[in-house]
Amino acid sequence: MASIIVLSGSPSATSKTAALSGHVGSRLRAKGHVVREFRVRDLPPAALLAADTADPAITEVIDAIAGADAVVVASPVYKAAYSGLLKALLDLLPQFALAGKAVLPLVTGGTPAHVLALDYALRPVLTSLGADHIVQGWFVLDKHITVDRAEVTLDPASLEPVRTAVDGFSEAVHARRPLAVAL
Amino acid sequence: MASIIVLSGSPSATSKTAALSGHVGSRLRAKGHVVREFRVRDLPPAALLAADTADPAITEVIDAIAGADAVVVASPVYKAAYSGLLKALLDLLPQFALAGKAVLPLVTGGTPAHVLALDYALRPVLTSLGADHIVQGWFVLDKHITVDRAEVTLDPASLEPVRTAVDGFSEAVHARRPLAVAL
Amino acid sequence: MASIIVLSGSPSATSKTAALSGHVGSRLRAKGHVVREFRVRDLPPAALLAADTADPAITEVIDAIAGADAVVVASPVYKAAYSGLLKALLDLLPQFALAGKAVLPLVTGGTPAHVLALDYALRPVLTSLGADHIVQGWFVLDKHITVDRAEVTLDPASLEPVRTAVDGFSEAVHARRPLAVAL
Amino acid sequence: MASIIVLSGSPSATSKTAALSGHVGSRLRAKGHVVREFRVRDLPPAALLAADTADPAITEVIDAIAGADAVVVASPVYKAAYSGLLKALLDLLPQFALAGKAVLPLVTGGTPAHVLALDYALRPVLTSLGADHIVQGWFVLDKHITVDRAEVTLDPASLEPVRTAVDGFSEAVHARRPLAVAL
Repeated sequence: MASIIVLSGSPSATSKTAALSGHVGSRLRAKGHVVREFRVRDLPPAALLAADTADPAITEVIDAIAGADAVVVASPVYKAAYSGLLKALLDLLPQFALAGKAVLPLVTGGTPAHVLALDYALRPVLTSLGADHIVQGWFVLDKHITVDRAEVTLDPASLEPVRTAVDGFSEAVHARRPLAVAL
Repeated sequence: MASIIVLSGSPSATSKTAALSGHVGSRLRAKGHVVREFRVRDLPPAALLAADTADPAITEVIDAIAGADAVVVASPVYKAAYSGLLKALLDLLPQFALAGKAVLPLVTGGTPAHVLALDYALRPVLTSLGADHIVQGWFVLDKHITVDRAEVTLDPASLEPVRTAVDGFSEAVHARRPLAVAL
Repeated sequence: MASIIVLSGSPSATSKTAALSGHVGSRLRAKGHVVREFRVRDLPPAALLAADTADPAITEVIDAIAGADAVVVASPVYKAAYSGLLKALLDLLPQFALAGKAVLPLVTGGTPAHVLALDYALRPVLTSLGADHIVQGWFVLDKHITVDRAEVTLDPASLEPVRTAVDGFSEAVHARRPLAVAL
Repeated sequence: MASIIVLSGSPSATSKTAALSGHVGSRLRAKGHVVREFRVRDLPPAALLAADTADPAITEVIDAIAGADAVVVASPVYKAAYSGLLKALLDLLPQFALAGKAVLPLVTGGTPAHVLALDYALRPVLTSLGADHIVQGWFVLDKHITVDRAEVTLDPASLEPVRTAVDGFSEAVHARRPLAVAL
C-alpha cells in the first residue's frame, strides 16, 4: 500500500482530464493505495502564478507531493503541450520534487494528432523534476470519456490501455517499496 | 514600420526576462517599429488561469496580438521548459493567433544546460499557434543581464547574438510587409 | 525563380515519402522553381554512415544544398521521429548548412498519432542547422498517398493542406529574394 | 545478475561515446551483470540503412536486445539530437523492442548547450520503443572523457553523476527481477 497523489491540470470545471483523474484514482484505491487528488484549478490563482510557496493551500500540495510514494500527473493538451495551469504548479515545486518517486503521465485531447505531446512535452518536464520512474502513460481522446453525474465511463478503446497503464504504474510503485511489501 | 508586441512571461517582479524584453523592445523601437510590451504577471491571475477571455485586461492583450505584425515571446526556463505563466496566456489565445506573423523567441536561464528548451519546448508551441515565421531566437544566461535602475546592460557574450537575433527578426518583419516598405 | 533541393529520407524503394516528395517537387517546378531531388537511400551507405564528406556522391549533395535557395526535407516517422537515414545525412552537413535558406518540413506516417514528430523532432534539428525560415509543414497519412506507375495522387484531405504548405513555402522563398523578384 | 546490452552510436573510430560506453560497461560488469557491447558503426552499413533484418550481424544485435534484461543507449549529440547512425539501428528494431526492459540513456557532446537533447530527443524515441523504465541518464562533456590506450578516465565533475546514473540503473535492473534476486 502506497501513498499516491493525483494532480489534475485542467482549467475547466467540467474537465475530461479531471474525470479521467477520478477514474484512475478509483482504480488505484481499489488496488489498495491511499490516493489523494488535487485539482490545480482549486488552488489560489494569485499565489500559484506568483509562486508563493508560503500560501497555505500551495504549501499543502507541495507537502503532499513530498510525502507521497508516487504521483499521477494529468493534463489536457493545449497548443501542442500540457496546460499552463499545470506547469504553473510544477514550476513552484522544489527542483527535484519527484526524486525517488514513480510517476504516471496522462493527457487528454480532442484529436489523436496530439498524442506525442505526452512524451515530447510533459515527460521531459517530469524528468527534470528528478522522477525516478516515469512509466508508460496514455493519451485519451476527450470523446472517449463520458461523465454522467459522478460516474465516469471510458470507451472500450481507451479503457484497456488506461488499465494497462495504471496497473503498470501500480506495479512500479510496489517495486519501489520492496520492504514494505514484504512485511 | 511595423507593430510589434513583446510578451514577457516571468512571474518575478525583478525578472531578468523582463529586463531582456525591455532591451529588445528598445532596440526594435530604435529601428522604427511601434512596440508595445506586456508582462503576463500584470494580468489578473484568476482570469488568466480560468481562460476568461471576457476580462478586459485579457481582451486587451488578445486584441493587441491580433492587430500586430509580429510578436516577441520571452520566457525564463523553469523545469526544462517555458514558464507556466507564459503558457497560461498562450493557452487562451485563439488557435491560430500567430498566423501571418513573425515571431522572435527568447529565453533566459541560469545554466547553458537549458539552451535547447528554446527549440524543443517553446518553438513547437509557437508553431502550433500558426506562426508563419519563427526566426532564430536566443538563450541568454541570467548573469549576462545586468539591471541598474531602468538601465539594462548585456554582457558582450550575449549582446552580439541578441542583436543578430533582433536584427534578423526586424528584417523578417519587413520582408512580410513588402508593399508598406516600398511606399 | 529559385533553386530548391528536395531531400527524401525513406529507406524504402517504394516509399510514400519519396512519392510525396515527387509530388511536391512537381508543384514547385510548376511555380517556376528549379528543383533537384535527392533520395538519401541512393547515397553510398558506408560513406554516409562514416560521414565521409570526400565521397563524390556525398560531396555532390552537400554542394547542392550549399548552392540552393531553399530545401524541402521529407521523412517517414519511425519510432516517433524522423528516419535515421535522413539524420545520417543531416549529421554530416556543415553546422549551419541551412543558414540563409527557407525550409519546408514534411513527414509521412501510418497514424495521426505521429503528427507532432514534425514539430518536436524534425524542426529542432533543422533549426540547429541554422535555417532562417522553416515554414509550416505538414504530416501526410501514408494511406492518403497513392502511386500508380509514376503518377502520385493525394487524398483530398491531404491535397489541400499540402498545397497550402507548398505555396506558403514558395512565397517564403520569393520573399527571401526580393531583388531577383523585382527585376 | 542480469544481462545488459550496451549500444554505442558514434560513427567515429576514436569516439568519446564509445569510450564512455566502455567505462559504463566495466562498472556494470563489476556489479555482477553480464554485459555485451555493440558499436553500431561495426554493423554492415548497407544492411543497416536498408533495414535488412535478415543480415546475420543485424539479426545478432536484434536477438541480443530481445534476450537482454536491460539496455544502455549511448550517443553523441549531433545537430541537437542523437546520431543518425544510432537511429538507423533503432529504426529497424521491432516496435516494442524495449518492452519489459530498463534503459539507461547517455549522451556526449562538446558543449553543455546540448544537455537537453537527452530528454527531448533520445528519451521520446526510447519511450516509443516501449521501454518500461528509462532511468535518469546523463550528459558527459567530450573533454571530460580521456582515453589513454585502452584506459578511460572521467573528469571528477562527470565521474560522480555517471556513477550515480549507472548505480541507479543497476538497481532498477535488479528491481525488475525480484525473484531472481531473492533466490
